[in-house]
Amino acid sequence: MDIFDRLKASAQSDWDSYVDHAFVRQMGDGTLPEPAFRTYLVQDYLFLIQFARAWALAAYKSRTIADIRAAQAGLASILDETELHVRLCARWGLSPEALEAAPEHQATVAYTRFVLDCGAAGDLLDLHVALAPCVIGYAEIGRKLAPHGVDALGDHPYREWIGEYAGDGYQGVADAARRHLDDLAARSLTDRRFAELSSLFGKASRLEADFWQMGLDGVTKERRD
Amino acid sequence: MDIFDRLKASAQSDWDSYVDHAFVRQMGDGTLPEPAFRTYLVQDYLFLIQFARAWALAAYKSRTIADIRAAQAGLASILDETELHVRLCARWGLSPEALEAAPEHQATVAYTRFVLDCGAAGDLLDLHVALAPCVIGYAEIGRKLAPHGVDALGDHPYREWIGEYAGDGYQGVADAARRHLDDLAARSLTDRRFAELSSLFGKASRLEADFWQMGLDGVTKERRD
Amino acid sequence: MDIFDRLKASAQSDWDSYVDHAFVRQMGDGTLPEPAFRTYLVQDYLFLIQFARAWALAAYKSRTIADIRAAQAGLASILDETELHVRLCARWGLSPEALEAAPEHQATVAYTRFVLDCGAAGDLLDLHVALAPCVIGYAEIGRKLAPHGVDALGDHPYREWIGEYAGDGYQGVADAARRHLDDLAARSLTDRRFAELSSLFGKASRLEADFWQMGLDGVTKERRD
Amino acid sequence: MDIFDRLKASAQSDWDSYVDHAFVRQMGDGTLPEPAFRTYLVQDYLFLIQFARAWALAAYKSRTIADIRAAQAGLASILDETELHVRLCARWGLSPEALEAAPEHQATVAYTRFVLDCGAAGDLLDLHVALAPCVIGYAEIGRKLAPHGVDALGDHPYREWIGEYAGDGYQGVADAARRHLDDLAARSLTDRRFAELSSLFGKASRLEADFWQMGLDGVTKERRD
Repeated sequence: MDIFDRLKASAQSDWDSYVDHAFVRQMGDGTLPEPAFRTYLVQDYLFLIQFARAWALAAYKSRTIADIRAAQAGLASILDETELHVRLCARWGLSPEALEAAPEHQATVAYTRFVLDCGAAGDLLDLHVALAPCVIGYAEIGRKLAPHGVDALGDHPYREWIGEYAGDGYQGVADAARRHLDDLAARSLTDRRFAELSSLFGKASRLEADFWQMGLDGVTKERRD
Repeated sequence: MDIFDRLKASAQSDWDSYVDHAFVRQMGDGTLPEPAFRTYLVQDYLFLIQFARAWALAAYKSRTIADIRAAQAGLASILDETELHVRLCARWGLSPEALEAAPEHQATVAYTRFVLDCGAAGDLLDLHVALAPCVIGYAEIGRKLAPHGVDALGDHPYREWIGEYAGDGYQGVADAARRHLDDLAARSLTDRRFAELSSLFGKASRLEADFWQMGLDGVTKERRD
Repeated sequence: MDIFDRLKASAQSDWDSYVDHAFVRQMGDGTLPEPAFRTYLVQDYLFLIQFARAWALAAYKSRTIADIRAAQAGLASILDETELHVRLCARWGLSPEALEAAPEHQATVAYTRFVLDCGAAGDLLDLHVALAPCVIGYAEIGRKLAPHGVDALGDHPYREWIGEYAGDGYQGVADAARRHLDDLAARSLTDRRFAELSSLFGKASRLEADFWQMGLDGVTKERRD
Repeated sequence: MDIFDRLKASAQSDWDSYVDHAFVRQMGDGTLPEPAFRTYLVQDYLFLIQFARAWALAAYKSRTIADIRAAQAGLASILDETELHVRLCARWGLSPEALEAAPEHQATVAYTRFVLDCGAAGDLLDLHVALAPCVIGYAEIGRKLAPHGVDALGDHPYREWIGEYAGDGYQGVADAARRHLDDLAARSLTDRRFAELSSLFGKASRLEADFWQMGLDGVTKERRD
């Protein structure tokens, strides 16, 4: 059992509230209303800007050239990931400038700044545990929504999104993130610290679930911000 | 017009959504249900822990002994402010340990980590502008809820809370914070930067309004975290 | 063997180069030229300003009220320690303003910013290991220079300085710092990490030795900065 | 007069002590002993690791995708610059691992951690002003040592180093850095702040001069660390 599976097992109900969220299930069976997806995707773009900063923080906190290069690769891959958002949003007539100017929802502020603060106040293990529900969780969700592979998705309305995270490229990123977490844990994880990290991981998972919820709420009410 | 008044005028509707929030009005006329106040107060305790960290961040970012001492005084005054919460919560049988162990609401995470990140990513002016809706806004709210002074509040159900923020002690803290903001602005505020700070101030005000809303929501629904 | 003694044993020659430095020996036998002491003391004042920031950083990186309060106490005690410097420097006609305006030597910049960066890039254990040669080392040096107690120092020319660090007050601070280090180590020290911390501790000890050397060099040459 | 030229003019003697240092002059006329260059180059490799972290810090402190991308480009270009060091050091039989394991000199610690701390405690303008003597100064030195162009250097013993910094690639990097500094200054530079930045710039220039001096000292004495 690697450290990621131990964290998941220790915060199972928080984890389930995230990966089995109604938003995810509706996306999977294709019933998710497009406005919900759209609300989500615009916020996810703003989210990735902050996550790019989180990878930059990881590079800053590194001590060796190898670690700096690895974090830089993470930063570059986040910036690439935003291309998906730009492409999809362009279909709705949203430019990158319009995306970047959209006001952040409370749910976006909460999870992204929580992660950044975990990293600023703690060490690299804290930072990567806080990032894990996003980085590794999206790979789990992608695989679940494409149980027979990306090609079997046919003309699924969310095929492009699911394909991105179910695809080999992203699955490899998530695998590497799991190994990196094990490596960081070997350096500074003790039994006593595990409880703290489990609590941090559970909180990050709940904040991710709140992020899906924001997408669903976006359909029924207009938020003032 | 000092910098605080300029910021307020530039983000008037966000500001009003905060200082005129239904939670504030109901607290003022004494109709606020106690469970709403209680939800708020427990979260506000967790909030102050993060704000103590924000003042410590201000001390860390200082360059002179005078600035370090001033930030240390701010830190000490936040730690004192928690005594009000401990005292009020004790009446409901809540110990400081129970308070500290309460799960943070999304609204608490959002505003506190936003402020900390403004401070970590920016300079002291960014940090203090992000803190201002809380530090200076509570003094404005306190004064508004005690228009004829603290003594005239009689047996108002929220007399203790209102008295804390309407009292001379806290009013002096807020006045000093306004002058400090002017001093920081004299150092590094240009016209071009004002728009950014106004946007940051408006966002912080909305996150404060969301914090009141969390108190009201606490009455009608139980949150899972 | 506590963690401090383990670190010392693992970096013994670096440690000895610091606590047995010629500056310390000459201070002990009273032969240290006053200009050397003066150069040192002025720089040590600038040093403490940065160390106050390091304690503020520790408060910022804390997660509980108890840890924030402890770091705030450390910050307050550093600010108190500067009173010794202000008092001694006043005899030479140096005001606190003049002290604060003195240019920092390379040795002062090197150790203080190294410590601050260890804390910003790492966790609280990294920060406190980097601080340990100063916080705990000065108590060891004080005790060594007053083997028969402070009263037995008679009219020793450096009695006031030695008395400060040999006295019960400072010895208690150092004891508390050792216990705190053990506590942090229990949380996040693994065998693999020990080598890193030992290297960090050795480097901090060498930078402290360089700081004494700057005092001695101050007698023989005038530095341009 | 751009902001860089204003800073230089305001700290002219510090600047001259750096760009006209004996190390630079001896490198220019080819009389610099190889051991001095070698001592310098090994330390400069360690220096660049910390500077890569400084660019990562700039990315972390950015607020827009454009600024994050720009800082990431700076980070990538620093990592490229280390290739020169790896190539030159390979001729002396030094592997990248040996380079990375070399102990840092006090001069290396002092300048790099000073820059990182300016960035952590201040804003992006502070960070880039602290970086400027290195980023922009090396272009000025390169141009000065190759007054008739890189091709005219013939078999100059330091042709490869001079060519790197006198070449169009690096000159373009420095030009972009100057424009970026102007842009940051337009955002948050006031008259009052200029004095602070000038002092920071002068200090960074002196720390750079100390870095050259370390190379020269490396020939005459063996340092213990």
